[in-house]
Amino acid sequence: MTYFFKAKFLLLLFFLSLLSANLILAFEREDLELQRCQHQCKHQEKFDERQQRECEQRCEDYLEEKQRRQHVEQRREQGYQEEEDGKQYRDNPYLFDEQSWRTVIEEEGGSTKVLERFTRKSNLLRGIDNFRVSLYEANPRTFSLPNHWDAESVSFVTNGYGTITLVKNNNRETFNIKRGDILRIPAGTIVYLVNKDKQEKLQIIDAFSIPGHFETFFGLGGKENPESYFRAFNTEILAAAFNVHSREKVERLFGERKKGVFLRASEKQIRELTKHASSEGGIWPFRGGGRPRGPFNLFDQRPSTSNNFGELYEAKPHEFKQLPELDVGVSFANISRGAMAGPYFNTRAVKVAVVVDGTGWFEMACPHYHPSTSQSFEEQGRSRLQEEEEEEREGESGPQYQKIRGQLSPGTVFVTLVGHPLVVLASNDENLQLVCFEINAEHNERIQLAGKENVIQQLEKEAKELSFGVPEKQVDEVFNSQKESFFFPGPHHRHGGGHAST
Amino acid sequence: MTYFFKAKFLLLLFFLSLLSANLILAFEREDLELQRCQHQCKHQEKFDERQQRECEQRCEDYLEEKQRRQHVEQRREQGYQEEEDGKQYRDNPYLFDEQSWRTVIEEEGGSTKVLERFTRKSNLLRGIDNFRVSLYEANPRTFSLPNHWDAESVSFVTNGYGTITLVKNNNRETFNIKRGDILRIPAGTIVYLVNKDKQEKLQIIDAFSIPGHFETFFGLGGKENPESYFRAFNTEILAAAFNVHSREKVERLFGERKKGVFLRASEKQIRELTKHASSEGGIWPFRGGGRPRGPFNLFDQRPSTSNNFGELYEAKPHEFKQLPELDVGVSFANISRGAMAGPYFNTRAVKVAVVVDGTGWFEMACPHYHPSTSQSFEEQGRSRLQEEEEEEREGESGPQYQKIRGQLSPGTVFVTLVGHPLVVLASNDENLQLVCFEINAEHNERIQLAGKENVIQQLEKEAKELSFGVPEKQVDEVFNSQKESFFFPGPHHRHGGGHAST
Amino acid sequence: MTYFFKAKFLLLLFFLSLLSANLILAFEREDLELQRCQHQCKHQEKFDERQQRECEQRCEDYLEEKQRRQHVEQRREQGYQEEEDGKQYRDNPYLFDEQSWRTVIEEEGGSTKVLERFTRKSNLLRGIDNFRVSLYEANPRTFSLPNHWDAESVSFVTNGYGTITLVKNNNRETFNIKRGDILRIPAGTIVYLVNKDKQEKLQIIDAFSIPGHFETFFGLGGKENPESYFRAFNTEILAAAFNVHSREKVERLFGERKKGVFLRASEKQIRELTKHASSEGGIWPFRGGGRPRGPFNLFDQRPSTSNNFGELYEAKPHEFKQLPELDVGVSFANISRGAMAGPYFNTRAVKVAVVVDGTGWFEMACPHYHPSTSQSFEEQGRSRLQEEEEEEREGESGPQYQKIRGQLSPGTVFVTLVGHPLVVLASNDENLQLVCFEINAEHNERIQLAGKENVIQQLEKEAKELSFGVPEKQVDEVFNSQKESFFFPGPHHRHGGGHAST
Repeated sequence: MTYFFKAKFLLLLFFLSLLSANLILAFEREDLELQRCQHQCKHQEKFDERQQRECEQRCEDYLEEKQRRQHVEQRREQGYQEEEDGKQYRDNPYLFDEQSWRTVIEEEGGSTKVLERFTRKSNLLRGIDNFRVSLYEANPRTFSLPNHWDAESVSFVTNGYGTITLVKNNNRETFNIKRGDILRIPAGTIVYLVNKDKQEKLQIIDAFSIPGHFETFFGLGGKENPESYFRAFNTEILAAAFNVHSREKVERLFGERKKGVFLRASEKQIRELTKHASSEGGIWPFRGGGRPRGPFNLFDQRPSTSNNFGELYEAKPHEFKQLPELDVGVSFANISRGAMAGPYFNTRAVKVAVVVDGTGWFEMACPHYHPSTSQSFEEQGRSRLQEEEEEEREGESGPQYQKIRGQLSPGTVFVTLVGHPLVVLASNDENLQLVCFEINAEHNERIQLAGKENVIQQLEKEAKELSFGVPEKQVDEVFNSQKESFFFPGPHHRHGGGHAST
Repeated sequence: MTYFFKAKFLLLLFFLSLLSANLILAFEREDLELQRCQHQCKHQEKFDERQQRECEQRCEDYLEEKQRRQHVEQRREQGYQEEEDGKQYRDNPYLFDEQSWRTVIEEEGGSTKVLERFTRKSNLLRGIDNFRVSLYEANPRTFSLPNHWDAESVSFVTNGYGTITLVKNNNRETFNIKRGDILRIPAGTIVYLVNKDKQEKLQIIDAFSIPGHFETFFGLGGKENPESYFRAFNTEILAAAFNVHSREKVERLFGERKKGVFLRASEKQIRELTKHASSEGGIWPFRGGGRPRGPFNLFDQRPSTSNNFGELYEAKPHEFKQLPELDVGVSFANISRGAMAGPYFNTRAVKVAVVVDGTGWFEMACPHYHPSTSQSFEEQGRSRLQEEEEEEREGESGPQYQKIRGQLSPGTVFVTLVGHPLVVLASNDENLQLVCFEINAEHNERIQLAGKENVIQQLEKEAKELSFGVPEKQVDEVFNSQKESFFFPGPHHRHGGGHAST
Repeated sequence: MTYFFKAKFLLLLFFLSLLSANLILAFEREDLELQRCQHQCKHQEKFDERQQRECEQRCEDYLEEKQRRQHVEQRREQGYQEEEDGKQYRDNPYLFDEQSWRTVIEEEGGSTKVLERFTRKSNLLRGIDNFRVSLYEANPRTFSLPNHWDAESVSFVTNGYGTITLVKNNNRETFNIKRGDILRIPAGTIVYLVNKDKQEKLQIIDAFSIPGHFETFFGLGGKENPESYFRAFNTEILAAAFNVHSREKVERLFGERKKGVFLRASEKQIRELTKHASSEGGIWPFRGGGRPRGPFNLFDQRPSTSNNFGELYEAKPHEFKQLPELDVGVSFANISRGAMAGPYFNTRAVKVAVVVDGTGWFEMACPHYHPSTSQSFEEQGRSRLQEEEEEEREGESGPQYQKIRGQLSPGTVFVTLVGHPLVVLASNDENLQLVCFEINAEHNERIQLAGKENVIQQLEKEAKELSFGVPEKQVDEVFNSQKESFFFPGPHHRHGGGHAST
């Protein structure tokens, strides 16, 4: 009977030990991700800030990311059903929608938003990771508080009428600004704006080139909303610096104010603040980080391309003394309703396009090695190395190209990489208007793949025939029929664009 | 008796509990690496593409890496036995052998290969990580399909006779190319080549400078081999862009073809494709990303250094209008059988050398702090920081230098870092021929450590005597005996080089 | 009774199983950090050197870091108690104290030290990670061994009298150097120095711009202290290169010496080594990596700013032909005892300041979103992204600013980021002297926030009143009372600076 007991208990023991084992393992498993995340953070807070940053990012992103996923799922269910070519739409690493904008300041008088880091969306965009985009919007009759950034910027006024004042040592200048004005603001310049209009909002898109940081500094603030950076200094040090004998004076000046960044200004104040504004950038030659020069208006010049289906205005770095140090080009495209721009590609510039008005969509061709097996475009982020290995494994002959498509509406931003063929389409309902920043714009060329000037028609007969394996006539029938250039009538029987599957 | 039972069972319980514990831990241990890898990937696919890339890389590399290890082991057993100086040969982070080339296209008509990323081999090469090398080889009488890259490139023709055609908006040019020709191809230029010879292969080495990507784009393809990027667009969008009314026309043009990239061309086709080829780069001044200019031949100029033991031809950026934007120099070294080049070092340029003919080996001196304890050269990848800590710990006086040696044969590539003393030796059987790309070549100087112009002989008597602690005479006996410069007769009693231990 | 047993044993079983489970988990927990560290290293040594570097760094740092923490704790207990504004001092990511210097060479004759990598302290400094600072100190009547670096450098002589000799192919030049001399040394230049004074030490601060590496190369050494890089080559290869027939000769020359880097030199040797020294950099125009040019003395020119409270001497890149290629400015500030410099900020340059004499402290305003919750300044290293999320969560209006304060004494180094307001104070006991390297100095401006030329006084009445919410009079009372500029009398009732809490 003892033996019976023993045997029985031994079985029990094994059973329970293994049970406990499994429980533990299971627990370990489930718990592992979060655990690691926290351990890493604790770990790396001690030692390595780069790691810590990435680690904390992962942890912090968790909730928001989940939401984004769900959002993506929805979008897929909506408009992203299978296509005739058997390829599928997936989360788009080149498209930034309303969810990608972070609110920095949100007040009754106005707001500023910043687009998330490009590399947060996809490592494919690492080439422009030191480049940020922000949105400024001020209500009528407001004054926005002086501040400076630690980054070089290019501003494009998309709406309204106002003045901008740039202050440096021994130098203050005020310029009138209106829709279409482009202004380069060197890092460290103290800037404040006035929306002098009675109805219109003043809207500005800023592109920042950052050397690794991206900070704004308010000196003329109070205890908060915004805080003044003077408050970071010991008040008696300030008293000494200002040569005032009562610390109270200093504390009072920086202590009370709680008004916010966008302030309602009186008629008189606006008159005073704007009366000396010049509309042209003065006469001295512009120098890199030196004395700022005034705005120029993109719409004062003739469009570089224009027909019934759209207009393109361009400010190339070498054309404007203001831009070269930054090597950022600015352009404005207005695509007529139902029309399209491209297909074309840029030879050198990475293009960041911000939709300012209208709706539509874009399609881009991206080299991709295994559309069949790829789970999501995020895989595009994997290293060339893996792609090489895949090529090797498959012994494929050359790359394949996957369609990237994205819905466009005001506030959406999309990025076009160098050499990637692209087409942008306006919906049939309204014109599509884009402000584009072209990074590394120097010597960039737009190579056109359709239309009167398409590059393919430049090949000689033999090259066409060898390449396509058909008589030149068949090639020309396709490539020489379009008499327009760059902007074309779109596929008219489409409606509302984008979702229509064909 | 119950007590007897109890006690006994308690012991059993402990025994078994601990057993289960150990089982679990053991399991956890073993499993941990793979588990982490997968968890990380799942984790980071969600959040962070850079991490995901690295993670997936690790997982994907696993098998291949194992093989490489074994290969390295073999090489050690073969030729890497102890040396008189007690140092050992180990896996070489500066050497890329046949295993480092990835096949992109492999066809009857020709092939293209790309060298793996430099940083994949060693983090020591991070300085040139945005630089890639590729090999192009086309069989006689072939036409290779037009394509463009998203990277700037410099091409060196190592064999054969052909034409290259560069196409941009409103501009097509065809140039004859032959061995020794160097050609700069701006990013986004559409390029196609013809091997017009009846016997010779056309071989080209390309160096690419990439802003973070490295993609090739074929527009004039079909369904596959290669796919045309036009296929990534909706056919009705293309129909609209091309202004053709039947989508079928478009689908037909891009739909059927399956011919591959390297196409056999008829006599007539080749005659037509090459008849307008010019041998000189036209007359307009070359502009950065602008209109491309023709090839120049490295062998048309006199060698910068030449004697019975070798010849060096150099194309420095500032000598050729084509190269400056890239700041890449190109040179060709021909080391006579049994001879050697150097020792010398580069003051600014990182040199990437591709062996095009012959066999031999190189030796390079690398700062290294604990040869005795280091497991492999990969440790060289550890941060300066650690080395500093080691110095601190050891209280060493200055660095020590470890020999890096690598076998050279056609297709091997090796990298020389700035300031690192180097010697390259040809085997006794055949000349060793190298094509070298010098990155950051502007203002680079080659500092010679032996021969008629060696830098040491420039020190004054006292500097020599203090440094070596011997009379100047003894120093000069060593440093002033060699009357040749740069190329010298090698250590003749060696055979086949490399393995011979002395 | 068996049931009684069963029940009892079942309870025991559960108890013990769970116990074992907990034991295991606990063990796993504790062990996890170290385990992961090692696993990662093993893992990544196989695959990914960057990762390996970071991983090994973490492991290796462990001990030292703990010490640093304790040190920081002490410092907090000492001088870092709460402040009136409720903010706390915490570990300072911009300050490098004696613990941050690594000894490279420590000999009777002299020493060289290197400052740790900036990013090791904080990822906020990633913008200057390819920039290093070193200290050279040679005792009287010494000769220091010829060597070269793989990095561009700018040297500033802080004390003593000596000569520096720069050697390149077919070119040797010797220059006299003394306190205040600035000298640019191109990468790969072979350099040796003589301290020709009988009493004074020769002290030099070097700033290095590194393309990713930072190595020193000694050719004229022996077996060790330092080793000669010639020893890394096969002796028979050297014999062939030198064209000497006995390998012994070569082995003897590089074999015996063990003297060290800093060598005592005789009167006669010093006379010979220094007699041809010129004090000016010759007449030819300086060319980037080309022929080096001699030193210029910062104190030969008039200070750019000067009053009873301090002097500032500046060498701007565009003023001196030597510096532009590097875009590094050098300046020297002498702040009188009890006085202060600033508050001000730099518009473009990141400033690295090395304290060469005196004591004091600095205060800097840093954008920071949740001072209340932040655990340490290391958190500043987290990504903009998180800060954006925080803003979003909080719906805060604009950033807040945290005070960074650091004690200054000889050898301490601190970094000022672009746009960050800063004030530097000398203690009441002695003048504070700083050598500053300004990275990205081109077009940099110093924006003054107090004193005769402060930028705030440039705002018009309405801007001041709207911003501060008080009558202009109150603003001017604070900002227009100081008649000095840049250097001001400090808060006199302070003693010894820094610790005094107010």
